[in-house]
Amino acid sequence: MKNEFNTIAIVGRDDDPRVTEPMTRLAEYLINAGRDVIAAAGVSLGIALREVEETGLAAEADLMIAVGGDGTMLYAAGLAQRQAVPLLGINRGRLGFLADITPDEMLVSLGRVLDGDYKRELRLLLKASIVDGNGETQSAVALNDVVLQRRESGRLLDFSTRIGGRYVNTHSGDGLIVATPTGSTAYSLSCGGPIMEPALDAVAIVPICPHTLSDRPIVIPADQQIEVTLLERTDSRAEVIVDGRSIGEISAGDRLLISRSEQRITLLHPSGYDYYETLRAKLHWGLDSRMRHSDVDVGGNS
Amino acid sequence: MKNEFNTIAIVGRDDDPRVTEPMTRLAEYLINAGRDVIAAAGVSLGIALREVEETGLAAEADLMIAVGGDGTMLYAAGLAQRQAVPLLGINRGRLGFLADITPDEMLVSLGRVLDGDYKRELRLLLKASIVDGNGETQSAVALNDVVLQRRESGRLLDFSTRIGGRYVNTHSGDGLIVATPTGSTAYSLSCGGPIMEPALDAVAIVPICPHTLSDRPIVIPADQQIEVTLLERTDSRAEVIVDGRSIGEISAGDRLLISRSEQRITLLHPSGYDYYETLRAKLHWGLDSRMRHSDVDVGGNS
Amino acid sequence: MKNEFNTIAIVGRDDDPRVTEPMTRLAEYLINAGRDVIAAAGVSLGIALREVEETGLAAEADLMIAVGGDGTMLYAAGLAQRQAVPLLGINRGRLGFLADITPDEMLVSLGRVLDGDYKRELRLLLKASIVDGNGETQSAVALNDVVLQRRESGRLLDFSTRIGGRYVNTHSGDGLIVATPTGSTAYSLSCGGPIMEPALDAVAIVPICPHTLSDRPIVIPADQQIEVTLLERTDSRAEVIVDGRSIGEISAGDRLLISRSEQRITLLHPSGYDYYETLRAKLHWGLDSRMRHSDVDVGGNS
Amino acid sequence: MKNEFNTIAIVGRDDDPRVTEPMTRLAEYLINAGRDVIAAAGVSLGIALREVEETGLAAEADLMIAVGGDGTMLYAAGLAQRQAVPLLGINRGRLGFLADITPDEMLVSLGRVLDGDYKRELRLLLKASIVDGNGETQSAVALNDVVLQRRESGRLLDFSTRIGGRYVNTHSGDGLIVATPTGSTAYSLSCGGPIMEPALDAVAIVPICPHTLSDRPIVIPADQQIEVTLLERTDSRAEVIVDGRSIGEISAGDRLLISRSEQRITLLHPSGYDYYETLRAKLHWGLDSRMRHSDVDVGGNS
Repeated sequence: MKNEFNTIAIVGRDDDPRVTEPMTRLAEYLINAGRDVIAAAGVSLGIALREVEETGLAAEADLMIAVGGDGTMLYAAGLAQRQAVPLLGINRGRLGFLADITPDEMLVSLGRVLDGDYKRELRLLLKASIVDGNGETQSAVALNDVVLQRRESGRLLDFSTRIGGRYVNTHSGDGLIVATPTGSTAYSLSCGGPIMEPALDAVAIVPICPHTLSDRPIVIPADQQIEVTLLERTDSRAEVIVDGRSIGEISAGDRLLISRSEQRITLLHPSGYDYYETLRAKLHWGLDSRMRHSDVDVGGNS
Repeated sequence: MKNEFNTIAIVGRDDDPRVTEPMTRLAEYLINAGRDVIAAAGVSLGIALREVEETGLAAEADLMIAVGGDGTMLYAAGLAQRQAVPLLGINRGRLGFLADITPDEMLVSLGRVLDGDYKRELRLLLKASIVDGNGETQSAVALNDVVLQRRESGRLLDFSTRIGGRYVNTHSGDGLIVATPTGSTAYSLSCGGPIMEPALDAVAIVPICPHTLSDRPIVIPADQQIEVTLLERTDSRAEVIVDGRSIGEISAGDRLLISRSEQRITLLHPSGYDYYETLRAKLHWGLDSRMRHSDVDVGGNS
Repeated sequence: MKNEFNTIAIVGRDDDPRVTEPMTRLAEYLINAGRDVIAAAGVSLGIALREVEETGLAAEADLMIAVGGDGTMLYAAGLAQRQAVPLLGINRGRLGFLADITPDEMLVSLGRVLDGDYKRELRLLLKASIVDGNGETQSAVALNDVVLQRRESGRLLDFSTRIGGRYVNTHSGDGLIVATPTGSTAYSLSCGGPIMEPALDAVAIVPICPHTLSDRPIVIPADQQIEVTLLERTDSRAEVIVDGRSIGEISAGDRLLISRSEQRITLLHPSGYDYYETLRAKLHWGLDSRMRHSDVDVGGNS
Repeated sequence: MKNEFNTIAIVGRDDDPRVTEPMTRLAEYLINAGRDVIAAAGVSLGIALREVEETGLAAEADLMIAVGGDGTMLYAAGLAQRQAVPLLGINRGRLGFLADITPDEMLVSLGRVLDGDYKRELRLLLKASIVDGNGETQSAVALNDVVLQRRESGRLLDFSTRIGGRYVNTHSGDGLIVATPTGSTAYSLSCGGPIMEPALDAVAIVPICPHTLSDRPIVIPADQQIEVTLLERTDSRAEVIVDGRSIGEISAGDRLLISRSEQRITLLHPSGYDYYETLRAKLHWGLDSRMRHSDVDVGGNS
């Protein structure tokens, strides 16, 4: 059998020794395994690698490995999704939702992946577009979420939503999150959104600190387009943030369109991967359960 | 064209004049329209109808019309689902989530439905089964939700969940709701569950007053089986409630299994029906928005 | 008996006819009642009033009447509190939490107040101060709330809190609200904070969209100083917003101090005033209760 | 100086070796220190103690020490409060909110307490009374909370509240919690209630899974009486649970009255005690903060 993953791109911040150390070890391991290892031009590691323009990494690679936190994974996903390159995440510290391999188990896990012993998982992506009178002005692809957030402090943002062309609601508050299942455990969860299993073909629309107390998260099928417009007030401005990065502002009259991307991102996991295990670890589930036993047993001597 | 709905069953409580009055009007209208109108044996209306044993209503009917609140709709859905009879709901008072025709528009809406001018909508059903050492002891079909609730006041219920055979979490609290999209606006919403669009093929698993604050609602694909077991403590008892009716208790060692039913229920709506319109009306959306303008405009004289 | 309220200041926006119309009617009524009516210099109403510099209004007035929304009330409270002038609020539209007299009952209510038939209520104020290495740089008084909010979109704000000198917690999220009982029904409520009865001598510390799900609102006695500091990360910036107005930014190393002000604001209410009645009206309490009866009664014919 | 605490009562379950072992060690230590140690008649420990009827323990004791979980503390508080005996809590396992001394530091902490090196803290108690047509039928004192909870599964409980004689709201849901600051970190927290600092002279009224989404927790001064009545529906029944123990049922027409007890309970803490430290430990505060850094740092190579 020929090697499935011949050219392997390594992505990570080179200003953090907790990242560059495992990146270097990883590169050495892969080179020893006879792979062609590439990195973005200018990345400074403890080993010399073939350098490729960052935007061209995905086009050359059969596999992309991101080392860092979930933020680095989001960044790598942006590179990988255009070329449908599968993505593997190695966390620099504790377990992440996306970067689910820890440095100490890194080489063992990677060895298995190179041997074909892995799980392939498709994750939904969203496309966010800002449309003004002249057409689409900005767009970006989200693995986690598209966030509309007010710019002015101390003011409420007034906006309305349509789903699949149907008017849904007029909202007042700090903004709105449209989250994928992947993003459901990120910002959305802090705003009261539900956890969504990664396999679910759905998105959650989650109001941020809504003024109306009955304005609650809605989960809809992912194939329906979401349209958000600001109410016509001259002074309204709101920022559109995709996976943590601002892509521009919208003002009254503009529209923010969010729909399922035609691409999906392919994540690779070591074969023992279990989503619920990650969830339990990240949300500290189970810890309270043990504490509780000492809390509630009602005493008495008999 | 032959009549699509020849035999029509009418279901409703006959001890509430707000229900019997529209039921009677409805029956007269349908008889005048040449339909065969049937009702459960013993129902006392202002008009004599052909009586059929309640459990046999669905087998004879081409259409079932429920008059009352959403509770009556749940009841009628239980009758209708076994025979795949479509169901139409007429509310006795205000708009309901399921009974979405008001009495004053009833005859006009019904006329349109008889003319074929309606929307047909499939809604997901769940099957709940209690399984003990001897096998399945109780089962029921839910349109809204399956609820596991503690019996003993002042005690927490400790139970664990598995989804699709994988262990998810061990919970402590008042219990758990497994809700369909239809049920997502009922009890589940009061416990922090998300609203789910009716077309979504998903269920929400919502802990009731969980002791662990990070124990949050999870939305999963509807084709995965959910298994709930009580932790092994001799004194644990919990009740299983399906669409508001207790179907039995489980104790340590028993399992509660919840999976998508093979049947779905068919709801008929007048052609102008809009789910989001119902949502706005029921949740008072939009009311606050107007109030807010007078609340937050920061004053000053210049 | 001499008139208790001889000189009466009227405050409101003069660019909104829904405000200037009642302001003008009010001024005419008061002048006819023999009172000395003053307004801020430059305010343009349908009647000529004695003009006083805005900052000097409170010093001359025995009573201040604010016409507008709760925003105008917050503004007027800022003027009134320095001189301990009692404040009366007239809403331009629907009932407000602070402006609790509607325009159509305005003259009757005011007549009663001038006759001494009113309730006097003291409301807690907070003092917020930004302190950097050189000492206090900014301060302001809040009737509703002091809000610390992140400036950068897409980033979490990391900050720590101390209460009465004791370390409480390190928070990650969108920020923090410190709310008075008066402010507990404003922004704080949208972020999950509790309603606090106005007479309660307490403040609520409410995290905004906290990353840690167990980071929950805390209510403490109002006499304890709250200290908030940003964690030492070079790029952190956060804005401090008092009653909806930004008073400045803090960065790592600065401290935000919040303590009970020595002054309180005096609100006057018509004698029939009931806080819970306002609460019910503003939060639409009772509406759902009626709806529910049609929702949950489980049907059946027997 | 004479010994402040001569007669010391030890309370705990004698069916759990994790409790009896520290109880026995504790008793030996105290006897060696020359104290008169008493226990409830029939308690079986590894050492013989002077036995007193359980209900008479507080009358003889200068200090009561409870060993177990917070449940045992609640139980001991019930004994202690009638005689104003100070109470000290030793946890059998992990730190509790009330039992805040762990077994391994037990003897050192206790030595300091006997030497007078401790903090004395007063905690608010509530009195709950059930009143029917014939007057008060049941009453009990709560350190944590008074809970009104529906008896019938699958039904909503409809009830109304009055505070200080004023009508507040009509509620629909699973019930209501009235919590002291001490109880604010127990069941109330699971239902969305705020944390209240122990020194706060306030109670929280927290609806349980309310049908109306704007029905939110209210914090009021502790000196106001709360009255709860069921709506007049023939089939309503609700249970009243005080600190986890049912004291009876109420039905339509009965009233549940809750007011501040004239007694307070005195807790003793080792001198280093810090409420916020307990809070951080019990709610896992700080854990997520560290995790987050690896989650959100947005990557890139430059």
